[in-house]
Amino acid sequence: MAEKAQRNQVRLRPHFKTHQSAQVGEWFRAFGVEAITVSSLHMAQYFARHGWQDIMVAFPANVLEMARINALAAHVRLHLVAVNPETVTALAQNLQHPVHLWLKIDTGYHRTGILPDNPVALDSILERVKESPLLQFAGFVAHDGHTYKQTERAAIEAIHRHTVAQLQELRVRYSRQFPQLQLSVGDTPSCSMLDELRGVDEIRPGNFVFYDLTQQRIGSNTYADIAVCMACPVVARHPERNELILYGGSVHFSKDTLPKEDGSVVYGAVVALTAEGWTEPLEGLEVVSLSQEHGVVRATAGQFAKYQIGDVLGVLPVHSCLTADLMKGYLTTEGEWLEHLSGLGRL
Amino acid sequence: MAEKAQRNQVRLRPHFKTHQSAQVGEWFRAFGVEAITVSSLHMAQYFARHGWQDIMVAFPANVLEMARINALAAHVRLHLVAVNPETVTALAQNLQHPVHLWLKIDTGYHRTGILPDNPVALDSILERVKESPLLQFAGFVAHDGHTYKQTERAAIEAIHRHTVAQLQELRVRYSRQFPQLQLSVGDTPSCSMLDELRGVDEIRPGNFVFYDLTQQRIGSNTYADIAVCMACPVVARHPERNELILYGGSVHFSKDTLPKEDGSVVYGAVVALTAEGWTEPLEGLEVVSLSQEHGVVRATAGQFAKYQIGDVLGVLPVHSCLTADLMKGYLTTEGEWLEHLSGLGRL
Repeated sequence: MAEKAQRNQVRLRPHFKTHQSAQVGEWFRAFGVEAITVSSLHMAQYFARHGWQDIMVAFPANVLEMARINALAAHVRLHLVAVNPETVTALAQNLQHPVHLWLKIDTGYHRTGILPDNPVALDSILERVKESPLLQFAGFVAHDGHTYKQTERAAIEAIHRHTVAQLQELRVRYSRQFPQLQLSVGDTPSCSMLDELRGVDEIRPGNFVFYDLTQQRIGSNTYADIAVCMACPVVARHPERNELILYGGSVHFSKDTLPKEDGSVVYGAVVALTAEGWTEPLEGLEVVSLSQEHGVVRATAGQFAKYQIGDVLGVLPVHSCLTADLMKGYLTTEGEWLEHLSGLGRL
Repeated sequence: MAEKAQRNQVRLRPHFKTHQSAQVGEWFRAFGVEAITVSSLHMAQYFARHGWQDIMVAFPANVLEMARINALAAHVRLHLVAVNPETVTALAQNLQHPVHLWLKIDTGYHRTGILPDNPVALDSILERVKESPLLQFAGFVAHDGHTYKQTERAAIEAIHRHTVAQLQELRVRYSRQFPQLQLSVGDTPSCSMLDELRGVDEIRPGNFVFYDLTQQRIGSNTYADIAVCMACPVVARHPERNELILYGGSVHFSKDTLPKEDGSVVYGAVVALTAEGWTEPLEGLEVVSLSQEHGVVRATAGQFAKYQIGDVLGVLPVHSCLTADLMKGYLTTEGEWLEHLSGLGRL
């Protein structure tokens, strides 16, 4: 990803919410990464403590957290995001240190953001940016979450191009007023599947650090690229229905699912653990349901017979960000423990 | 629940995985509760540190955690659960202190457990219990998770009665061999909705300490009984579609859903926060989707107009256990902070 960013002459500002680990962050530094994205002020504080100086909180700024915003803005180059004029005014009235303010544009995902064809809304929010010299308008951010529903490169490319075109129109419209304004995009499917990522100033993919089954289904990665795996002991066996019960449920994986062609869903892919890591997904074993602590693996008769109480199976997660957040730490294949912010307790 | 247990002459062994809080545990002590249920050895260690002496780990014993099992069994009256003979043999070979062993019976939920009409399996596993004098056979446990799919008291009563009948048959079959054997059941729907809980020795409901929307839908509780609520700030507004964006997503709530009659799902009910707590769910506001940090509330035009950036809405969770686990702590309506095991960091 670092190489692709360099080739396209865009800044890589990776989203660190996927790993939330100071040590994994160091891996990025080795590739020249200096600017990062997070999804909460709490995460921003954590990475600021670990020496990161250029941090975007890619979530609509919560004006009830002004004390945290000011504490961070005093020490790092803090980038905030706004969608509504009221947010900008609240920031303008309460900021004590400069922040870089980005406007979130809804380029088609329709979760949040300003519609790009709404110049009245854009003008009125940009007017408010002038209410404080501490608010430095940085540009427009977009997140193409709708690429997650695609499984074809052409569809993802079409979404990405449309997004870049919309953002570039905004740049043209506002470049006289704000000649320095930048454009920032960044979903893992686009950043993984497209070779050309031109026309913007930065990309903010996050999930690619680990990938997972969701991204594999989209086409962002192969199974071999998935870098997190849960080690789940077999705690019960049901020969009458060829089902194994794993110690691994929704309190460990969260509850995201992958749709199957027959309308059913899976909660994870089963792999064998090896000395070096793990294998590709095993045929004839499937995580078919999760309750709080139980994972149910349905097996073929042949596969079922191979696994005994106390064996440990690997499970590739449907959504690696949520699984890492719940497990609160990592053991590398080299035997090193890495921390996760959620393992440090409640702040 | 304590009063109902006493009236039915059954032991209340509440499941503490719902709250995972030492202080909430104290509330139970005030009602005479001395025996508890947990779902992991980690949780058992936590409550043992807080003075609990009689702890059942209601999950098939993980034979890879013998060091933890022995450390706990040295200090508390530890109850473990087994489904397969191999588990019993592994325990027999590695135990250093006595434990109370229960066999898990599958009374109809079909997640895990020994089928009660399988005397060969039952006899063979009970033979293994004799392999170590440290294994003290305690009786049969069941969890009627299939009551969660019901919404009628009569259906829940039918499930409960069938379960008790099956367990009583087992008691008759094995009482000569094990005259002290006990029967333990405990899902929140049965324990909440039925007045009569006779024929067993103990009940293990857990969720009733907080309740939630799932239990309300089943009929276990009213909205007014729900004792956890998430305070979620409004961080963005979308007048073009009457949607509010809350700071509250799947990393806070997890991702359980409630089905609606029209086939759609909801992720939480919106309430107004008050000086004393919160109101009943508000008409015309609904949490219609969750992504990692975003909660999307769809509103009527009238409701939408009332809520501004920086307002804080209350959201009643679909599943209180998972929400508490993710939020890692509680603020009571009296302003006191209560801890949650997951807020203490990674052990």
